Amino acid sequence: MEAPCRVAVLGCTGSIGRQALDVIARSGGRFEAVALAGGSNTRLLTEQVVEFRPRYAWASASDDALGEAVAAVGAVLESPEAIASAPDVDIVLVATAGAAGLLPTLAALRAGKAVAIANKEVLVMAGHLVGAAMVEGGGELRPVDSEHSAIWQCLWGESPRSIRRIILTASGGAFRDFTREQLASVTPEQALDHPTWKMGRKITVDSATLMNKGMETIEAMWLFDVPMSAVEVVLHRESIVHSLVEFSDGSVKAQLGVPDMRLPIQLALSYPARLPEPPMPLLDLAGIGALHFAKPDTDRFPCLRIAMEAGRAGGTLPAAMAAADEVAVERFLAGEIGFLDIPRVIERVLERHRSIPDPTLDEVLNADAEARRLAAAVPPGVLA
Amino acid sequence: MEAPCRVAVLGCTGSIGRQALDVIARSGGRFEAVALAGGSNTRLLTEQVVEFRPRYAWASASDDALGEAVAAVGAVLESPEAIASAPDVDIVLVATAGAAGLLPTLAALRAGKAVAIANKEVLVMAGHLVGAAMVEGGGELRPVDSEHSAIWQCLWGESPRSIRRIILTASGGAFRDFTREQLASVTPEQALDHPTWKMGRKITVDSATLMNKGMETIEAMWLFDVPMSAVEVVLHRESIVHSLVEFSDGSVKAQLGVPDMRLPIQLALSYPARLPEPPMPLLDLAGIGALHFAKPDTDRFPCLRIAMEAGRAGGTLPAAMAAADEVAVERFLAGEIGFLDIPRVIERVLERHRSIPDPTLDEVLNADAEARRLAAAVPPGVLA
Repeated sequence: MEAPCRVAVLGCTGSIGRQALDVIARSGGRFEAVALAGGSNTRLLTEQVVEFRPRYAWASASDDALGEAVAAVGAVLESPEAIASAPDVDIVLVATAGAAGLLPTLAALRAGKAVAIANKEVLVMAGHLVGAAMVEGGGELRPVDSEHSAIWQCLWGESPRSIRRIILTASGGAFRDFTREQLASVTPEQALDHPTWKMGRKITVDSATLMNKGMETIEAMWLFDVPMSAVEVVLHRESIVHSLVEFSDGSVKAQLGVPDMRLPIQLALSYPARLPEPPMPLLDLAGIGALHFAKPDTDRFPCLRIAMEAGRAGGTLPAAMAAADEVAVERFLAGEIGFLDIPRVIERVLERHRSIPDPTLDEVLNADAEARRLAAAVPPGVLA
Repeated sequence: MEAPCRVAVLGCTGSIGRQALDVIARSGGRFEAVALAGGSNTRLLTEQVVEFRPRYAWASASDDALGEAVAAVGAVLESPEAIASAPDVDIVLVATAGAAGLLPTLAALRAGKAVAIANKEVLVMAGHLVGAAMVEGGGELRPVDSEHSAIWQCLWGESPRSIRRIILTASGGAFRDFTREQLASVTPEQALDHPTWKMGRKITVDSATLMNKGMETIEAMWLFDVPMSAVEVVLHRESIVHSLVEFSDGSVKAQLGVPDMRLPIQLALSYPARLPEPPMPLLDLAGIGALHFAKPDTDRFPCLRIAMEAGRAGGTLPAAMAAADEVAVERFLAGEIGFLDIPRVIERVLERHRSIPDPTLDEVLNADAEARRLAAAVPPGVLA
């Protein structure tokens, strides 16, 4: 038996982190969770520390029970950045949400690690810095998002130069069939009820606004080194076709599967191998009967257009957009602004933002901070 | 500019052969048709000789005008087997129908050539001999059938051991929605009107009976080295998804495209490169709207079951089946027997056939000849 692959799980208490630990627990010793970093859910983190006995642990909040558990298993408290570059870590799974994933991602790539990236803000904010860190340290990025994992799989054995189009599929979110009038009055509870994927709160709202898909177009640009003009989005309500790639000769490849995030998580850890017998039902196309496709409507869902334009423009604009979105979604979930205010708040912020081309990390973080301040101050409009 | 890739087109006057010459003509000198072998359509072959000026030519029928054209361009008359192993041929496209493709395929593989194989009978009759010839000479097989090309593309960059299922798609043929009663009285004219693909007469009838799909399951077994238990067929009326592969971790890859045989033909010639700008429309999934999938009905279309059982049993049974089918289809097209007599004739022949395991080439050819005799003698049943 080979030595286990040592995995650091950053964001271990979130939806992706918990599923990653499930994959690791079922791997029969193939993977080992050597580091666990969580946020404020210290109760769950404490349980995970007791179960997985990591070498490194970290929480953004302090907690006595967690401290005792960490001491009991002999783990060391380390920051996510230190964990990401520790010599006894092979793969870093970045499953933290928002800007928190950026510094550990850069640290891991500079240290030559494989980074399984589930955090889309990292590439949206600083795709060019991530690329530079990869070149500097020889690290590699492996996508965890089901869409980017699909594209990645379709590209195995292909020449990157033969990509003509990347087609991201979108379930359409919770409100895909709502009129603009209906969208104006949707509640946070409605927005959190996603039709196919069970995910965190922020990403579920981002799915409903299509901002999630918009950020994925920017992610795809960076991950697969294509211009935004080569990226398209198609609505696909069944979430069975996870994405497609069209090649120079007109051939199209797609990756399909039952919607279950454990598959792309496992593949990002096991690559280039595929493991046998995952705990998921097989795809039954005849049972499903039909797969539907449609054009996305950017009048009802302007966030998709906003994100693709920001991605095309580049500079600090995508970072400002992601930060403004994070604040706008928080304000929506707090009942402060309406659903259609989310794109409005983001557009107001971007109108005032002065984008810096090819920004440094500080410039990116400044753009992020400034956009958050501005987004917090935009008054509600559509719903007063 | 690199020296052109020298292609021998066996079966150049058939549907695949003509499309291959179209691909070669549009390739801007990347490919050269150095050999043309045709059947009895010597008028078209003469035109092709004048246009492509091959080094080698051959026709199963003799013709004065063809002889003059061959002499005028300085070509040499050679048998398909001699062409297939000629030192100045790089790729042999085997696009002849029926048993005629077998000897040239074996000769080409023994001579270490790349064989672009569009003839399914070759693998159905003698998959084990084709495999042995490949090992002996170091040649390689590249599928041309759209389904097998799809599977081949899905397997690039994958480990063959990680294949769990191969899922062939089937348009369902001209009569997919017919009842058994309607099937009993269909005419050759109706059978030759295929809903999506424009193909030769034999293969169009084989598509309507699902024998074509059944033979493709046997072909897939040999091409991708999987047992019949790992091969499935799903009906897909739009013919957009050309086939799928399911891997050990539950991930499924598919290859899609506008139905146009020039794509897989070109890819079998250009591999591992994909050429830019093929003369075909791009895939518009949103425009298509929905892709449908259903289980095939082997009560109405028993040829699919017959072929999969013959493939599972092996020996000379698949060769006998293919020969019986060829005769049965000829008799149907001649108005001698009904559409539902086709599987009946094949089953009668197979009931009497004594299969020889791991047969030699002679035993395969004897099985073929004997099955043809038997198939010609089975009286019509369903339609008298």
